[in-house]
Amino acid sequence: MAETAHQAQIIDGKIYAERLRAQVAEEVARLKADHGLVPGLAVVLVGDDPASQIYVRSKGEKSREAGMHSVTHTLPAKTTQDELMALVAALNADPAIHGILVQLPLPKHLDEKAVLTALDPDKDVDGLTMINAGRLASGLPGLYPCTPMGCMIMLRETVGDLTGKRAVVVGRSVLVGRPVAQLLLAEDCTVTIAHSRTRDLPAVCREADILVAAVGRPRMIRGDWIKPGAAVIDVGINRVPFDDPIKAAEGRTKVVGDVHFKEASKVASWITPVPGGVGLMTVAVLLQNTVTAARRLAGLEI
Amino acid sequence: MAETAHQAQIIDGKIYAERLRAQVAEEVARLKADHGLVPGLAVVLVGDDPASQIYVRSKGEKSREAGMHSVTHTLPAKTTQDELMALVAALNADPAIHGILVQLPLPKHLDEKAVLTALDPDKDVDGLTMINAGRLASGLPGLYPCTPMGCMIMLRETVGDLTGKRAVVVGRSVLVGRPVAQLLLAEDCTVTIAHSRTRDLPAVCREADILVAAVGRPRMIRGDWIKPGAAVIDVGINRVPFDDPIKAAEGRTKVVGDVHFKEASKVASWITPVPGGVGLMTVAVLLQNTVTAARRLAGLEI
Ligand SMILES: NC(=O)c1ccc[n+]([C@@H]2O[C@H](COP(=O)([O-])OP(=O)(O)OC[C@H]3O[C@@H](n4cnc5c(N)ncnc54)[C@H](OP(=O)(O)O)[C@@H]3O)[C@@H](O)[C@H]2O)c1
Ligand SMILES: NC(=O)c1ccc[n+]([C@@H]2O[C@H](COP(=O)([O-])OP(=O)(O)OC[C@H]3O[C@@H](n4cnc5c(N)ncnc54)[C@H](OP(=O)(O)O)[C@@H]3O)[C@@H](O)[C@H]2O)c1
Repeated sequence: MAETAHQAQIIDGKIYAERLRAQVAEEVARLKADHGLVPGLAVVLVGDDPASQIYVRSKGEKSREAGMHSVTHTLPAKTTQDELMALVAALNADPAIHGILVQLPLPKHLDEKAVLTALDPDKDVDGLTMINAGRLASGLPGLYPCTPMGCMIMLRETVGDLTGKRAVVVGRSVLVGRPVAQLLLAEDCTVTIAHSRTRDLPAVCREADILVAAVGRPRMIRGDWIKPGAAVIDVGINRVPFDDPIKAAEGRTKVVGDVHFKEASKVASWITPVPGGVGLMTVAVLLQNTVTAARRLAGLEI
Repeated sequence: MAETAHQAQIIDGKIYAERLRAQVAEEVARLKADHGLVPGLAVVLVGDDPASQIYVRSKGEKSREAGMHSVTHTLPAKTTQDELMALVAALNADPAIHGILVQLPLPKHLDEKAVLTALDPDKDVDGLTMINAGRLASGLPGLYPCTPMGCMIMLRETVGDLTGKRAVVVGRSVLVGRPVAQLLLAEDCTVTIAHSRTRDLPAVCREADILVAAVGRPRMIRGDWIKPGAAVIDVGINRVPFDDPIKAAEGRTKVVGDVHFKEASKVASWITPVPGGVGLMTVAVLLQNTVTAARRLAGLEI
């Protein structure tokens, strides 16, 4: 046998996200044709944070491209809590709206928790309400956070059946680590959750058939932390100076994941790159969640 | 050194439960003296299931013994959903009541989910509402299920600081396995959740510094599944025929746990017996939860 360096298959986020958006568009067309149902997404932006504006614009565009009804409410930074709560109540009651996304963070004078508590959990397409967190933790149907759902789609389409696999999630944030762990458990993995207080993290990671990194530390997870043949999902998005000292000296930066991609690619079977991996799935899953919400609110599925 | 057979320390549920009830009684006395606050527990029993009647009576007695205000509502088996919902609404609104426990299971014609949805999560001393499951899954303060909380008290008082320990929970039910895993994570353990689809369960169990069994299979977990020196919490309650064939032939049964106690005692450092272990903690934690709810509703803690 010729000796060739092992190279993991790259899980290309662009391809997965495009495929998912195409599936959503098909489903939207079917719901229109068969049921006269047009899934509707309302995005609420308070204030003028430039990054939030970009995200919100992209969510609007992508939902329209998928054939959905899309509304963006842009409120001034000095919006009061009462005004925001009134908008949420109106969207909760609006039968043309099936998904409501309040872009976070809100300006400091507004109470995020109160807004999320007021949100109809069956329209909570970001999966951020306590009720949806409870449903997820109880193994019940609900609406779940988009990035974790994106991880699962990638895993199912590469690894196949996840039953009985050992999964290790590094990170336990409410937005990523915890929901990913719950979703892996729902797919019958044996799930380990690791975090900053974990002892001998490399050894724990080496147990993983499926390794999900959601830490926020550039290239922390090295090649020899990875079990040969594992699937590696890198959720991290970290901005670091260029490796090239000249570019670095110019202050130029790039984005890397929590996994040392070059080393890990030599050991893993599948790996998501950063950029170009999981990150691209998030908006596509948001659209999918909106379709799911519309189907459920119309009584077409549980 | 003389060779002596190793014998785990037994975690005696009776002692722990008595101690906890004494602490609760002290706290109740303090709340009365300092704040004129009397924690109140309402227990709702629908129908005449004999086991439920026993549990409800014991909860009433123990809460009175702790100096609490205690009310038991016994409703006939043919109570309607509307009647039950009206009672829950009245208890939600009653300022003398800080904890509400609806004894499950309800008669088949009643909708348990609707009752739990209506229950004020801040009075949900059984920790069964979706909002409390969501808070637990999000690492937030809330009211959490009693048996899992009992496991944690025993672990903290025997093992001490749990930070960084490897914990394995066998079982992922909403009542026991899942909340225990969340509570262990909140104490900074590295937590693995195993279940019926786990491969090589003995090897997974052997990783555990802390092993919690909540399976419902008599003596399934053998001595050689246990890491020497581990703390073993056996939540299982299983009725089996007597080992003695004569007694067994008479149809006599006894209760055993999910762990093979005799074998496990030779390997573990600490172990809960069955009966006489975790099971005894549940009602004491219910009282503690009621005091916690009363303190929070009165604004005395978060
Ligand atoms: N669309 C996307 O692709 C997307 C979405 C969200 C986030 N992200 C990225 O994903 C990463 C994680 O985000 P997050 O929101 O989950 O971050 P976070 O809230 O900061 O949580 C980080 C987690 O990593 C753990 N951790 C920190 N240092 C560690 C260490 N040395 N060893 C082991 N664990 C350690 C922390 O443990 P403790 O709990 O013990 O502190 C914490 O649970 C970030 O890079 C973020 O930018 C990407
Ligand atoms: N107060 C108390 O002390 C108290 C309170 C509640 C319960 N209990 C006792 O605790 C035990 C568990 O109760 P529960 O309500 O959690 O039970 P449950 O709802 O039946 O859940 C049992 C769990 O064990 C898992 N399991 C079943 N067979 C297994 C196997 N061969 N290997 C590995 N995992 C297996 C199941 O996995 P799957 O999810 O894959 O099916 C399930 O997650 C029972 O004996 C119960 O009587 C005691």
